Amino acid sequence: MGCTYAILGTGALGGFYGAKLQKAGYTVHFLLRSDYQQVSHNGLIVESKDGDFTLPQVNAYQNVEEMPRCDVVVLSLKTTQNHLLPQLLPSVVKDNGVVLVLQNGLGIEAEVAKIVSHVQVIGGLCFLCANKIAPGHIHHVDYGRIILGEYSSNYQITGIGDKIRQIALDFENAGIEIELTTDLLLARWKKLVWNIPYNGLSVILNARTDELMADEYTYKLVENLMYEVVAGAKSTGRNIPDNFIPTMLDYTNKMTPYRTSMKIDYDERRPLEIEAIFGNPLRTAQSLGVNLPQITCLYQQLKFLDWKNRNISYS
Amino acid sequence: MGCTYAILGTGALGGFYGAKLQKAGYTVHFLLRSDYQQVSHNGLIVESKDGDFTLPQVNAYQNVEEMPRCDVVVLSLKTTQNHLLPQLLPSVVKDNGVVLVLQNGLGIEAEVAKIVSHVQVIGGLCFLCANKIAPGHIHHVDYGRIILGEYSSNYQITGIGDKIRQIALDFENAGIEIELTTDLLLARWKKLVWNIPYNGLSVILNARTDELMADEYTYKLVENLMYEVVAGAKSTGRNIPDNFIPTMLDYTNKMTPYRTSMKIDYDERRPLEIEAIFGNPLRTAQSLGVNLPQITCLYQQLKFLDWKNRNISYS
Repeated sequence: MGCTYAILGTGALGGFYGAKLQKAGYTVHFLLRSDYQQVSHNGLIVESKDGDFTLPQVNAYQNVEEMPRCDVVVLSLKTTQNHLLPQLLPSVVKDNGVVLVLQNGLGIEAEVAKIVSHVQVIGGLCFLCANKIAPGHIHHVDYGRIILGEYSSNYQITGIGDKIRQIALDFENAGIEIELTTDLLLARWKKLVWNIPYNGLSVILNARTDELMADEYTYKLVENLMYEVVAGAKSTGRNIPDNFIPTMLDYTNKMTPYRTSMKIDYDERRPLEIEAIFGNPLRTAQSLGVNLPQITCLYQQLKFLDWKNRNISYS
Repeated sequence: MGCTYAILGTGALGGFYGAKLQKAGYTVHFLLRSDYQQVSHNGLIVESKDGDFTLPQVNAYQNVEEMPRCDVVVLSLKTTQNHLLPQLLPSVVKDNGVVLVLQNGLGIEAEVAKIVSHVQVIGGLCFLCANKIAPGHIHHVDYGRIILGEYSSNYQITGIGDKIRQIALDFENAGIEIELTTDLLLARWKKLVWNIPYNGLSVILNARTDELMADEYTYKLVENLMYEVVAGAKSTGRNIPDNFIPTMLDYTNKMTPYRTSMKIDYDERRPLEIEAIFGNPLRTAQSLGVNLPQITCLYQQLKFLDWKNRNISYS
């Protein structure tokens, strides 16, 4: 007797987790935009290292107004679409329901809580490598674990309530590894330790992770950016332990050469998630009196490149 | 009864100033590498906004050992060739002569003074827009003024001696505008206020000066980098006045859209003058306890891009 789910944004990530839930027997409703025709007629295909499967029929919607209210609304749009949230969220989430934010970056849960103030907001940090290779066709390459944490006002540390436990159970029943945290803010900052240097530099320097690690100068820059993220976390009262940075560097060194999600967005000329990943952490730390100069430098460089990438070049 | 001149590095800059001096009647000896055959047979051509001229015969050399000792040795190589200075300088400069450093960046005069300790070293900051459009064929686009300052140990403030006056007179006779300074170090830092942001960002962001100025984010980044250069100057005891930064920004806004010299080098896959323009100022400030984090970020990004630009890409 699990929850009903709405997937707002059926890209690689939303499509993957939604499909896994439906396959496990849960009722799932998918919001789509460009892939609506394909998916409403032919369903979803998931090619996965854990086993391929097809869902010939899914509940597909083009407009959020047509969707039934659900227990759990999964926010899996890119954050660059978050200006749409006031139109999307209120009509689809049940009173006493949950919005589960499966997006990157900092501060999104607080934005969501302002829009739907009478529901619980839960943040989820996804460690997933998946691509959409065609409309309704997802390739799950590796990983898939989610860290779940409840949002409470100003990102205070929380307990582990019934709702988050129920969601964790549903996802685990669907074969997705779940970890629970009482400190969502710390988890968000820790993910930024990786995302800020690698997403940023991969776009600015047109480089894969292995290239950034092989060069002594960018290695040093990555490391220093990580220390700035730790300083940002500290400004909000969260201590990332000393050994976390060498662990992240070591982990990246051992990874398969990797094109980051921001680099893929850039190469496809899609808008970059600069505000969620860079802007919000910078403004948060700044409001607490802490400047992060090298992250600021990357932020400004990315804003320029993103704008130029999506507008006609005048050269 | 002027000086005799050796031009070490007959590119656009060395070729232009050397040709102007010879045209005015001075004895000039030119060191060449790739253009030797062309220039030794056909001389130099200068197309200039101040009037075109040709020198059908010039004293051209392939090896510094064949050159006569001169009163003034003009160092007009790219700084990326400065590892050659111990082989080049000692045999060509007269005892009691002068080495005139017409290179970009910080700290070169001190390096030269270590190699030829019994001659005077003078620094020259060139505000010249010129390109070599073919072997021995120089296009002088605009400007040409030089600020001259004597180097003394540790860049102390100096007087204006006879030698620098003589050189200034020779250049002025050749139609080159000269300004004299008693504070070479301050002049060098002031030039870096422009060179560091625009040379660096033009390469990293593939952008002209006008694009960097039109975008609010890179405008802010340029401005902040300028403040870091001012902080670097201050670490060495030099105060760049408050109104210098708005003046530089305004000046750049009014410039013709401009591809910086470092961007031209990058596009031609030539080595970039990163150490002279970024590395030396950073190390100087660092040794005095001052970190310049955003300049460091640019330095590390440029080191990566320069390496990748000149080596086989492994993607």
